[in-house]
Amino acid sequence: MMTLLNGPNTPFGRLAWAAALELGIEVENRVIDVYNAEFLDAFNPLRQIPTLVLDDKLALFDSRVICMYFASLRAGADGFIPQADWAVQSRWSLAVGLMEASVARTMEMRRPPSERNMAAVAGHDQRVARAISALEQAADEICVKDARIDQLATAVVLEYIDFRSVSDWRGNAPRLAGWLESETARPSLAVTRPYDNRPVA
Amino acid sequence: MMTLLNGPNTPFGRLAWAAALELGIEVENRVIDVYNAEFLDAFNPLRQIPTLVLDDKLALFDSRVICMYFASLRAGADGFIPQADWAVQSRWSLAVGLMEASVARTMEMRRPPSERNMAAVAGHDQRVARAISALEQAADEICVKDARIDQLATAVVLEYIDFRSVSDWRGNAPRLAGWLESETARPSLAVTRPYDNRPVA
Repeated sequence: MMTLLNGPNTPFGRLAWAAALELGIEVENRVIDVYNAEFLDAFNPLRQIPTLVLDDKLALFDSRVICMYFASLRAGADGFIPQADWAVQSRWSLAVGLMEASVARTMEMRRPPSERNMAAVAGHDQRVARAISALEQAADEICVKDARIDQLATAVVLEYIDFRSVSDWRGNAPRLAGWLESETARPSLAVTRPYDNRPVA
Repeated sequence: MMTLLNGPNTPFGRLAWAAALELGIEVENRVIDVYNAEFLDAFNPLRQIPTLVLDDKLALFDSRVICMYFASLRAGADGFIPQADWAVQSRWSLAVGLMEASVARTMEMRRPPSERNMAAVAGHDQRVARAISALEQAADEICVKDARIDQLATAVVLEYIDFRSVSDWRGNAPRLAGWLESETARPSLAVTRPYDNRPVA
């Protein structure tokens, strides 16, 4: 079976895992400590998660490639990742960019105060706010019934933002906020929800 | 005509522009000052380059989506971006990850010394070294004659590393070094080479 090397809380890895669940792909999700994962270098020299190990010779990354690979295993998965729908592809990029800005803000705030660059934090905050506003403007397209990659990525990043207290966003995005209240029960989200308290495998 | 909003030196944007040239796609490459580009938010709320503006309503990003879009405009471009070749897709990710580590290192070194985190710099250096070693190990696959996205991305990132003095990599990657000596004359690379001295449009 394929192994998805993942972290306990990464939004990129959660998206890949949730995509596998939505598509009905069997994959072992293995949570590792990426900060002490020298073995990972042989599969992904960037030492980043998620990395999908297919066999001794081939590992796939980044999360976008992994999601595309999962979809390629399912005939008829065009609804989940519509390859030629460039608006969906770019909204997926927007949600991933929002993940990057949210992770970067979190990492900046973890620096010792003397090394913290508050202009950088402000820049991340602005990017986060703009991205959420744009997703809110596209709520009609994002908040659809059937699972689609831009929709799943939006739910994952909003829950990451809550998890890390990156932004108090609900006042500026009431439609996304209302949608997430019920969307959060989607099985692929419930199963993959970050779980700091569980042991690292 | 489509407009590729780009920077003067970004490896991500250079890759997108070079991909257009390889595929014979007509696009206006417009160099902007991304640090003062509020107008960009309407197209890409992340305010990142490259962003491909198709019309008033649709803009595409990130660089991967833009490259895939360019390839979709050309029947027979499967050699340039072989969609189902997951080794090529992941080598493309590796080269892009190497771009990210190289840019992150450059940005960290631009911080005032008091805010500079040397552990972060060391981490970037290790990631850069591992990624270059892995690309060197894959030189047989990368250094092919006909243009392909992983090959083009590797050339672009190695030239970015030289441009920003990120790493003195040639001793550890003699095959890539020898290849780049002639590859650098490829027209799509020559036309798009970073040009700090030209005015920003």
